[in-house]
Amino acid sequence: MRKIVLHEKEMPRQWYNLAADLPTPPQPPLTPDGKPITPDMLAPVFPMNLIEQEVSTQRWIDIPEEVIEILSRWRPTPLRRATFLERHLKTPARIYYKDESVSPPGSHKPNTAVAQAWYNKQFGIKRLCTETGAGQWGSALAFACKLLGLECKVFMVRISFDQKPLRKIMMRIWGAECVASPSPETNAGRGILKEMPDTPGSLGIAISEAIEAAVSDRSGKTRYSLGSVLNHVLLHQTIIGLEAKKQLKMAGIKKPDVIIACAGGGSNFAGLSFPFVCDKIHGEDIAIIPVEPSACPTMTRGPFAYDHGDVACMTPLLAMYTLGHRFVPAPIHAGGLRYHGMAPLVSQAIVEGLLEPRSYDQVKCYEAAMLWASTEGPICAPETSHAIACVIDEAVRAREEGKEKVILFNYSGHGLMDLVGYDKFLSGQLTDYSLPEEALQESIAKIQHLPKVKKQKSGKW
Amino acid sequence: MRKIVLHEKEMPRQWYNLAADLPTPPQPPLTPDGKPITPDMLAPVFPMNLIEQEVSTQRWIDIPEEVIEILSRWRPTPLRRATFLERHLKTPARIYYKDESVSPPGSHKPNTAVAQAWYNKQFGIKRLCTETGAGQWGSALAFACKLLGLECKVFMVRISFDQKPLRKIMMRIWGAECVASPSPETNAGRGILKEMPDTPGSLGIAISEAIEAAVSDRSGKTRYSLGSVLNHVLLHQTIIGLEAKKQLKMAGIKKPDVIIACAGGGSNFAGLSFPFVCDKIHGEDIAIIPVEPSACPTMTRGPFAYDHGDVACMTPLLAMYTLGHRFVPAPIHAGGLRYHGMAPLVSQAIVEGLLEPRSYDQVKCYEAAMLWASTEGPICAPETSHAIACVIDEAVRAREEGKEKVILFNYSGHGLMDLVGYDKFLSGQLTDYSLPEEALQESIAKIQHLPKVKKQKSGKW
Repeated sequence: MRKIVLHEKEMPRQWYNLAADLPTPPQPPLTPDGKPITPDMLAPVFPMNLIEQEVSTQRWIDIPEEVIEILSRWRPTPLRRATFLERHLKTPARIYYKDESVSPPGSHKPNTAVAQAWYNKQFGIKRLCTETGAGQWGSALAFACKLLGLECKVFMVRISFDQKPLRKIMMRIWGAECVASPSPETNAGRGILKEMPDTPGSLGIAISEAIEAAVSDRSGKTRYSLGSVLNHVLLHQTIIGLEAKKQLKMAGIKKPDVIIACAGGGSNFAGLSFPFVCDKIHGEDIAIIPVEPSACPTMTRGPFAYDHGDVACMTPLLAMYTLGHRFVPAPIHAGGLRYHGMAPLVSQAIVEGLLEPRSYDQVKCYEAAMLWASTEGPICAPETSHAIACVIDEAVRAREEGKEKVILFNYSGHGLMDLVGYDKFLSGQLTDYSLPEEALQESIAKIQHLPKVKKQKSGKW
Repeated sequence: MRKIVLHEKEMPRQWYNLAADLPTPPQPPLTPDGKPITPDMLAPVFPMNLIEQEVSTQRWIDIPEEVIEILSRWRPTPLRRATFLERHLKTPARIYYKDESVSPPGSHKPNTAVAQAWYNKQFGIKRLCTETGAGQWGSALAFACKLLGLECKVFMVRISFDQKPLRKIMMRIWGAECVASPSPETNAGRGILKEMPDTPGSLGIAISEAIEAAVSDRSGKTRYSLGSVLNHVLLHQTIIGLEAKKQLKMAGIKKPDVIIACAGGGSNFAGLSFPFVCDKIHGEDIAIIPVEPSACPTMTRGPFAYDHGDVACMTPLLAMYTLGHRFVPAPIHAGGLRYHGMAPLVSQAIVEGLLEPRSYDQVKCYEAAMLWASTEGPICAPETSHAIACVIDEAVRAREEGKEKVILFNYSGHGLMDLVGYDKFLSGQLTDYSLPEEALQESIAKIQHLPKVKKQKSGKW
């Protein structure tokens, strides 16, 4: 069977919260001077119902009926088997993938965009502000806001705004206002423009502008929205893994042996894997692999430390694997994986020894994407190609070991908005980047003054 | 139920051939001097197994097992219900659509590309040549050839080659060689380049080059492939309608009341509608509406006549509705609908009074596409927007008449490769085109010297 389809009625009715099951609870977010962040402090930025989710340790959280109805436009997503890739690799492994590319914006991002827009609307919010790099998250939030009747404002990193017009058009189709960041609309933007009128912008600047635009709206009807990293964002993505579990069962599979997903901020990885991490905590033997680019090796090279989520230090301190908030990754095409930190819940699961992070070079990932396109057929996103490169390695290992493993991975998005990277690869213009060791050590040194994470009983670290 | 999914095992095992059921058989293709084309004459252009399909009047034709296996990468496609659009329109009509946008190249085109590549391979062919305008067909054939291990050469109209790099990259990813037409590689191309070095090219020129490149390969291992119009192409698309029939039954619907699809060369329209046209011939009451652009009103303004399929008169004469092969439609964004003729089988069904063609203006279609994106969510292809504009009109009519109709339409493709048209629409730069009446009459006059179609007993004309 190539495709395992859940009936609409079998869509999960609750999200799974890993915070309830982690052997050691995640360390709390802090202010820069080391005090725990209280929900009140976050109130100007997020609506209280999402803040409650952010700090919740309840295992199961109900998905509102209207959110389910909106998700049903494309969910449940199919679980597919990559039989043609298996055959090409002559592997005894069975390779299954959860196809999140079928959403209208083309990735897993709308799973949380819809939920966030809905909770904001419930709270009386009329308008959401966010930032976007290449535009995947911006287009997902624009889509969700359009369906729920909210206004949406996206600060898009200027170099992408100028060079990648396609995602910008998607956002406009879904009614969002998209401006190049830095913009003259915020103090943060005006300051930077005065200092560096020709700056290409950065995600850090765009986050600062989006937060400022949200908190400075005097009507109190505007909030900020983030597409990854935070607990409630990861929570909303767990519908992916919960569906996959039911679908594997339909295929007669008790449990997968290997689970793989790419990880930038951590949300698509968490979405697929967390329901299985729960099983692992309870004794199941599953290898769970988050894959990151060698050019931005947060989990494989960074320390576990308190750090800011943004360059401008506007966010609270989060306990996470980090390369330091000043680290500027090389311009790899997988823009969604160019983030200096890793979601606190994913980071804590690494600390607990539950995950086995791995990093891959850009060229190897494009080679994997090309093999995917020529065997299975579809063109994958550059982020997703990192998962596929790892899947191929694991399938080859299964062949060498003669083991009939079940490999499950998250096909987080299609690459139709990212064809330029393929063009460069095919023209031989794409290279790997060696890690700037000195800059990395400098960036890590710069967070040494921040409060330290506490040593904990369990875990390997 | 938003989504009705067929199990892989329920995929149709045979294509449906309307030629077996039309009250009057379609008129045969002719040479320019009026003699019937024999299969032998087509042998340098197409493999004999496809020529046999082209002239077959057998009702059911088996789909080869390997073709089914390849199609199973994305088929059966879902039948979805547009509940959010229904609600917005406050219509009692139920709107169902067959989602052909889920194929890796993003449209219905691969249904025939895979079949054609397979039959060519069976016949010992190693390489296919084709032409493409905006690139939808070229990318579908590149995809099919890659999966079947054939070489693929695409002559792409130069103005699209220069202005629309995305589809070109898709073709390269799937291993096809894509050159701008006119090219220096053929006599036809060299002649035109000498005469008009700066020509933007045309589909007519590209067809001439592709046919020449196919027939002039001395190894005899190259053939030509066409993406619409011909009987065997339409045949391969009937899997759409056959699946839809089973899915409607699963939804408890005996028959649809209205069937709608856009029509350029006629293949996506025929694919969805022909199995239902068969029911209509046998007495069912169904309104079946092919929708074309007002800027290229083949079915609503053209005569039913013998005409060439291409500008350079290299193809046989086909009995069809036509605006004359010299007619140059205005540059509407729905490039797939800018064709002067209409498939002979669709044309014959119109002659028989089985279809009710309708034409729509470009701006109204974009308005429909925007309503679709803001209610159902996805961004549709500009071609598909023509079907949606008609669906909206029919749903509103059902409301006004208080009738609980079932409307079925073909969602032939997504619009992610065609965002520039949306950008122009949103910026107010998109207009309708008035039909150049004089040029149209001139173009029609120019085919007066060709052999005439025979008057037939049945039908309204």
